[in-house]
Amino acid sequence: MKLFLEVVPVEKAVATVRRIAPRTAAETVALEDAYGRVLARDITAGEDVPGFTRSVVDGYAVIAADTTGAGEAMPAMLENVGRVAMGSPEDRAVAPGQCMYVPTGGILPPGADAMVMVEYTEAVGDEVLVHRPAAPGENLIARGEDFASGAVVLEVGRRCSPRDLGVLAALGVAEVPVAARPRVGIISTGNELVPVTATPGPAQVRDANTSLAAGFVTERGGEPVRYGIIRDERKALEEALAAATAACDLVLLSGGSSKDERDMCAATIADAGEVLIHGVAIAPGKPTIVGRVGMTPVIGLPGHPASAYVVLIAIAGPLLAAMTGESRAVRTVAARLTQNIPSARGREDYVRVALDGEGGATPLFGKSGLLNTLAASSGVVRVPASREGLEEGEDVEVLLW
Amino acid sequence: MKLFLEVVPVEKAVATVRRIAPRTAAETVALEDAYGRVLARDITAGEDVPGFTRSVVDGYAVIAADTTGAGEAMPAMLENVGRVAMGSPEDRAVAPGQCMYVPTGGILPPGADAMVMVEYTEAVGDEVLVHRPAAPGENLIARGEDFASGAVVLEVGRRCSPRDLGVLAALGVAEVPVAARPRVGIISTGNELVPVTATPGPAQVRDANTSLAAGFVTERGGEPVRYGIIRDERKALEEALAAATAACDLVLLSGGSSKDERDMCAATIADAGEVLIHGVAIAPGKPTIVGRVGMTPVIGLPGHPASAYVVLIAIAGPLLAAMTGESRAVRTVAARLTQNIPSARGREDYVRVALDGEGGATPLFGKSGLLNTLAASSGVVRVPASREGLEEGEDVEVLLW
Repeated sequence: MKLFLEVVPVEKAVATVRRIAPRTAAETVALEDAYGRVLARDITAGEDVPGFTRSVVDGYAVIAADTTGAGEAMPAMLENVGRVAMGSPEDRAVAPGQCMYVPTGGILPPGADAMVMVEYTEAVGDEVLVHRPAAPGENLIARGEDFASGAVVLEVGRRCSPRDLGVLAALGVAEVPVAARPRVGIISTGNELVPVTATPGPAQVRDANTSLAAGFVTERGGEPVRYGIIRDERKALEEALAAATAACDLVLLSGGSSKDERDMCAATIADAGEVLIHGVAIAPGKPTIVGRVGMTPVIGLPGHPASAYVVLIAIAGPLLAAMTGESRAVRTVAARLTQNIPSARGREDYVRVALDGEGGATPLFGKSGLLNTLAASSGVVRVPASREGLEEGEDVEVLLW
Repeated sequence: MKLFLEVVPVEKAVATVRRIAPRTAAETVALEDAYGRVLARDITAGEDVPGFTRSVVDGYAVIAADTTGAGEAMPAMLENVGRVAMGSPEDRAVAPGQCMYVPTGGILPPGADAMVMVEYTEAVGDEVLVHRPAAPGENLIARGEDFASGAVVLEVGRRCSPRDLGVLAALGVAEVPVAARPRVGIISTGNELVPVTATPGPAQVRDANTSLAAGFVTERGGEPVRYGIIRDERKALEEALAAATAACDLVLLSGGSSKDERDMCAATIADAGEVLIHGVAIAPGKPTIVGRVGMTPVIGLPGHPASAYVVLIAIAGPLLAAMTGESRAVRTVAARLTQNIPSARGREDYVRVALDGEGGATPLFGKSGLLNTLAASSGVVRVPASREGLEEGEDVEVLLW
């Protein structure tokens, strides 16, 4: 039983969880349920979108050459041969010297090659005076201009935004191939913990980490399965771990702030399966465990809530993304530091920051056992292991929560 | 029937929708269902969190004065009087010359005022050698340091993040008071539209706007109610509008790209209720309608998908936020333009941009009838009505989708 490995860099921990990540199955959901789901294969346009050349204005379909040199003083005079009906094909052609009315979104009739906005025309009986020249292709969306038949439009691994749902609708993808949501078991350990509904006695606190982790899993597209608070007793922990690893795709084992508790968590994982990492060079979050029971990864989260949350985004986030194949799991914004951040060389420091909306990131230094700065922050700034801190005014990348 | 009003500035349209926004009722949801919901009242700490002073390290509780001057050469020698059990109150006191072992998270015993990390100590029989001096309060979280009893911790109008769920758990808020999700009816009009499941005939396109709008509503915490595609016939539109405004808190009426269609939408809303705005100085999105049937706001969205989406975030977003009381509905990031954006003075231009992750925002110029640039963009940059464009290198605020 190899329990106490050396502390590994964050990138090695991430590489490890990616390697052991079990891919979830592909499944199909109705388009209206696809928001936030991760595409399980490339989405290809099955036909040209739009399937016909259409007008983007209300006006007249013309042959551009007929309008050459047209102006206020010398308008082009064209014969009005009718009106296109929305949604109906148009067999009548526009011949030289003619024009046809087309509402926005209507099909360009055969023969025409441009649209003139109605604002630049004047109807006089059966004739239309055109006061501006039109260039070929003007005010049109060409057939296939939005999506050409056969083109890959949305790539596998993309998490569906509302805009993507519009694209899927336009392409006729009523049933969307997506990765199944990972089922994520959440176990909290600690003899000092009481449920949210309880009033803590002396020396007791309510379990916040289950709610933190469940919210995180929900936000990242997983399905949290709560196993509640397990006392720090070997047998209880073994049973909970066995049940969770059998039923879930991933288990987050939260708690164990003290060395004794951490050691028991690690020993329990090692006995049931294997411990791959015990200690990550990340602050806060050093006492992180990465293990596996059968094919189910188990992440041992630190007990302090801010530590636990940093490990969730730095390590559990990449793991969840690898399970669904999500390609862009990390959300970052650029910002400028408003204060110095001191740090120690040799470990990655994750410092909570608040964004001010004007490009500034203000460090919120606070004990990792506190929730208050966690709730007030927008994300973290990473101080690389090679640096001894960051300076006020420096451009940084903020890893958003 | 006052149908054709003048084009109003965006800020006036936003003020109008805020004025007519019906507030949704307050309701209570279980903590585990509160992710993404908007708080309906301030959340106050009912007691100190934590309710006792606790250690943040594994080590010994000491009286700081006993360790003054302690060092490697001359450690302080203290009598070890026992060990605190996690989650249990501690009645035994630490007297001068004594110390007691406390695991991380455990209660500080009476008499002690600091913790020394176990790494800086050495146990010798019943004695503990302390190799470093401790300052009063060191390595402790004081009672109430996270949240003091009576303090407002989370304010009304806040949309619950995973971090907030942890805070609510710590405070014992098992049932969370939230604003009910707005029910948002979505109607698409247009004779050229066919459902997502259909193969478009010549001159037909699939309805993308219903999916765009439904995804947006879901993302913003509302509940979409789909009324499908309604033909551009007065009676059909009247019936759909009557049904939707009776059953929903807000109706989004999408489509009507052509002037005839827009006029019919406006006339239908005016006959059933009132049209307050018909035309907004926003590009794309000018032919926007704001009206009301009974107490239910109706937003007429432009037919072009990119136009519709700009109006969703610029006008429907603030409206939805006003309905739930959400305080921070607009998400922005600072960025630097990588190219010039030309614009016309006198209207607000919303230009789609892609963020490069290094602080750069690249404009994606594209016809508003296309979905492709919409899906590729991260948000929009607003060119104020007073400006004739923005310049490369300029600092801008990106309104995220």
